[in-house]
Amino acid sequence: MDKRKVGVLGGGQLGRMLVESANRLNIQVNILDAPAAPAKQISSHDGHIEGSFKDAAAIRELAKSCDVVTVEIEHVDTQVLEEISGDVDVHPHWSTLRIIKDKYAQKDHLKSYGVAVAESIDLEGKEEEDFKKVGQEYGYPYMLKSKTEAYDGRGNFVVKSEDAIAEARKALAKRPLYAERWADFKMELAVMVVKTKDMTLAFPTVETIHEDNICKLVYAPARGVSKEIAARAQEMAKKAISTFQGKGVYGVEMFLLQDGTLLVNEIAPRPHNSGHYTIEACPISQYDAHLRAILDLPIPEEGLRLKEPAIMLNILGGKTPDSHVKAAQKALEVGNASIHLYGKGDARPGRKMGHITVTAPSMSTAEINIQPLIEMVDELAGKPNKTSPSAAEPLVAVIMGSDSDLPVLRPGLQILEKLQIPFTTRITSAHRTPDWLREFSKEAASSSLRVIIGAAGGAAHLPGMCASWTTLPVIGCPVKATHLDGVDSLYSMTQMPRGEPVATVGINNSTNAALLAVRILGASDLEVRERLRMWMAGNEKEVLRKDKVLLEQGWEEYLKSMGK
Amino acid sequence: MDKRKVGVLGGGQLGRMLVESANRLNIQVNILDAPAAPAKQISSHDGHIEGSFKDAAAIRELAKSCDVVTVEIEHVDTQVLEEISGDVDVHPHWSTLRIIKDKYAQKDHLKSYGVAVAESIDLEGKEEEDFKKVGQEYGYPYMLKSKTEAYDGRGNFVVKSEDAIAEARKALAKRPLYAERWADFKMELAVMVVKTKDMTLAFPTVETIHEDNICKLVYAPARGVSKEIAARAQEMAKKAISTFQGKGVYGVEMFLLQDGTLLVNEIAPRPHNSGHYTIEACPISQYDAHLRAILDLPIPEEGLRLKEPAIMLNILGGKTPDSHVKAAQKALEVGNASIHLYGKGDARPGRKMGHITVTAPSMSTAEINIQPLIEMVDELAGKPNKTSPSAAEPLVAVIMGSDSDLPVLRPGLQILEKLQIPFTTRITSAHRTPDWLREFSKEAASSSLRVIIGAAGGAAHLPGMCASWTTLPVIGCPVKATHLDGVDSLYSMTQMPRGEPVATVGINNSTNAALLAVRILGASDLEVRERLRMWMAGNEKEVLRKDKVLLEQGWEEYLKSMGK
Repeated sequence: MDKRKVGVLGGGQLGRMLVESANRLNIQVNILDAPAAPAKQISSHDGHIEGSFKDAAAIRELAKSCDVVTVEIEHVDTQVLEEISGDVDVHPHWSTLRIIKDKYAQKDHLKSYGVAVAESIDLEGKEEEDFKKVGQEYGYPYMLKSKTEAYDGRGNFVVKSEDAIAEARKALAKRPLYAERWADFKMELAVMVVKTKDMTLAFPTVETIHEDNICKLVYAPARGVSKEIAARAQEMAKKAISTFQGKGVYGVEMFLLQDGTLLVNEIAPRPHNSGHYTIEACPISQYDAHLRAILDLPIPEEGLRLKEPAIMLNILGGKTPDSHVKAAQKALEVGNASIHLYGKGDARPGRKMGHITVTAPSMSTAEINIQPLIEMVDELAGKPNKTSPSAAEPLVAVIMGSDSDLPVLRPGLQILEKLQIPFTTRITSAHRTPDWLREFSKEAASSSLRVIIGAAGGAAHLPGMCASWTTLPVIGCPVKATHLDGVDSLYSMTQMPRGEPVATVGINNSTNAALLAVRILGASDLEVRERLRMWMAGNEKEVLRKDKVLLEQGWEEYLKSMGK
Repeated sequence: MDKRKVGVLGGGQLGRMLVESANRLNIQVNILDAPAAPAKQISSHDGHIEGSFKDAAAIRELAKSCDVVTVEIEHVDTQVLEEISGDVDVHPHWSTLRIIKDKYAQKDHLKSYGVAVAESIDLEGKEEEDFKKVGQEYGYPYMLKSKTEAYDGRGNFVVKSEDAIAEARKALAKRPLYAERWADFKMELAVMVVKTKDMTLAFPTVETIHEDNICKLVYAPARGVSKEIAARAQEMAKKAISTFQGKGVYGVEMFLLQDGTLLVNEIAPRPHNSGHYTIEACPISQYDAHLRAILDLPIPEEGLRLKEPAIMLNILGGKTPDSHVKAAQKALEVGNASIHLYGKGDARPGRKMGHITVTAPSMSTAEINIQPLIEMVDELAGKPNKTSPSAAEPLVAVIMGSDSDLPVLRPGLQILEKLQIPFTTRITSAHRTPDWLREFSKEAASSSLRVIIGAAGGAAHLPGMCASWTTLPVIGCPVKATHLDGVDSLYSMTQMPRGEPVATVGINNSTNAALLAVRILGASDLEVRERLRMWMAGNEKEVLRKDKVLLEQGWEEYLKSMGK
């Protein structure tokens, strides 16, 4: 495919997955790391360099053997990279790595370009008194962080009160420190950004869940996050990365605060744990993208789309040396799970040994698939299960103009339950709460929802107005009100103007509204379709049974047995 | 993951992709092949064996180094496999390989188990006269095939007339021959079957397209094949494989005849070209499945499902030594394409150098994506483009009770065209062609269709009956007939009994029927949803424009400009 050779500083799991991508394009990757490092195991040629990615001489040797040099870790000697940059392409740029490897400098840099980050104060070489002043200014808790060599929670300390300062300073002794204002975040988001020679592209916005400061789970797309926020996160991530020099993928971790504000938390100038899901879930993975970006190969934007919702679960070293193997073995039994073991020798507790990605037609199915694995890794880690199974994300919203419509909806809701369709019920009156209906409808398409059922009586504007503000299919269930037998509602739903259809079912027939929602979901989800088919077959059998009884008993007997 | 070692006879592309799967599970695979064979390139350890998979001594050496031995090709020395079977597990069983590598014996075996195959006659060591007799019995053309060492068209000859017999015998001289009755097939299907220690599972039924006897394209799922036929093909494939001993995946190639009959054409006792698509399109690939099967690791059936429709295109060596590289480079520009190059040195014309898989939310999108690549490989192979772009598979069926409904449907059909939704229009009267409507409706869910729009006037039973025979969402468009202003049809669609909903839109409002279909497709296809959003935004702009004009001109002027 390409005669150019790529050199990588470091051959751990990120280097290994980059080699997987390169192998498929027959591009040679020379790894600088110890013999039999994870990346070297799957790449057999004589171009690898033995040594540490911290060793200047080895880096110079690597540079001589390659056309482009990249990194799988930012904690590298940027002086040497600066030096070799005259002879070989280095991506990302050494200056980018120099800024990013110092977290305080990174924040300062972002701030200077107008990218929102948490407030921070330099504490390098400062006294206990200065640490107390931070507490007075920021309040408690605040974050104490090492500027350098900090990752996966190492080099971080949450200072909970003034009394804890001594302990914190002891824990992070001899490290260059800075303090950061506590970010009271609702959730953590992340976006993988691809910087090519002439474009900045973003993968979808995902949700990350950390435990003990280590990434545990990644949900793609982020659950319950509006399209507007997801797009804002992508824009912010792209803006942040556009301030740096050098091609490749970058991981941008963000806080979503309670008020909807986004702050950049941290940037990784390389493939990132929060982007592993892309291997199965996107046509082009973060590793494909990194390789293409540093080699100026094309990247069609469509390649960054999400094929199916995905959940990534890290497999860490556990209580025993083979804990991670047990987790992987369990994953073999799980439908929709793809397993990645990194070929690392020793499993220390907390060491990243592999990961599992589940992709499924809906996030709720993915959540059901992965739940036993989450429980298992928690158990293997000797932890009580903290991650309570989140309620499955609703696929259907049943909205009504008034709670008086709820009894009519009951049979429909029971059908949805029976067919295991996650749904939510909301009261959104078109006339009494028009703004709320508008807000709900506008957000619907960017949530987990795929279908909306709207029930209303009388003038029954609810489903029609909802349809006007969303691109999702809206089903109308006319409710028989005091007058006109429900025909008023039936007409106001079916007779919508050309442009905004309402899929109208019979008066008071919430059963059919629910079944129509199931058919719509089933149009793209074969599992749902199969459940519906089974249910319909059950109904058919029941009618055939009754017919048999009628035939055997005769109509008079049958009527009697009906009590009529 | 597993301390057991797997040995493979042969390290070409199939061995290589098997190693990819094994790498992710950290399972060591020892390859018997030349140094730097494709599979060895991505597997760095000292357990590989240098030599030919035809060399008995080398096979014995491999056996000593492994716990399980498998093959990537069936043309192996089964005597040696029989011999080593006492010391090491061999999968598939040597007896299976012995039968399958001889195509005549293979057919004989299948016939003896009641699996339908094309008729065949042994011609080994026979005279010209016997070849003529075959022509008298089977007619022309008939297939002349070598019993052994035949693959990718080598060893096959189509005997078109009695005059061609001499040429055919010359072309296949010194080979053990047999003749096969010509199968006048509608299309070729294939199913990958997984045989584990206690189960036989099937991947989806796919469509294969051969050119010059070499597999060119694979469509998953097979296009335009009913659910019933697809299921029958899977059952037939499973039945065929259940007659053989030994675990692993098997490729089963079949002919679908004009009358719907299926014949097994050929079996491959190993991963197969027609199963490459599973790498991207299924949670578990054929290589994952093979590895798991021979090691008795679990295989959840859900893992064999299709995530998205997929098309696989082989990249063959072309006119020039770098033709395949050009095809791969072109594929980098194609959205949704995944590229696999096999790391083979020399590109001879027709040699399999790599493949490309496109997966997309719908088959029609995948077809659009892959078209430029098909054109390119044809051009590189120096061929005129034979594969005319097949009409995209319809996602929506617009059915009507009578052609008199067609004018009412026009605006809806125009909307579908405008929003690039592939659709088909059919006349299926509920009262005049009830059987045809039934057949159509029962098949709909297993075709490419995702939504049905039914238009009818008067009693308007069409959409309701259709809904009773399908699990797909059915949209009803009431058509205003001679009496009752269309309210009759409106009622007969909305007022369906609980159980079989019809999504009813306004009388004569085919626009809304079409837009509802688009919304339903958009519920799972974000690209369609985006197209709809753009269209709606255009409408919004148009109304706002009119409002501005009204404000500027005043209502009297405005009415005048409307000519009213």
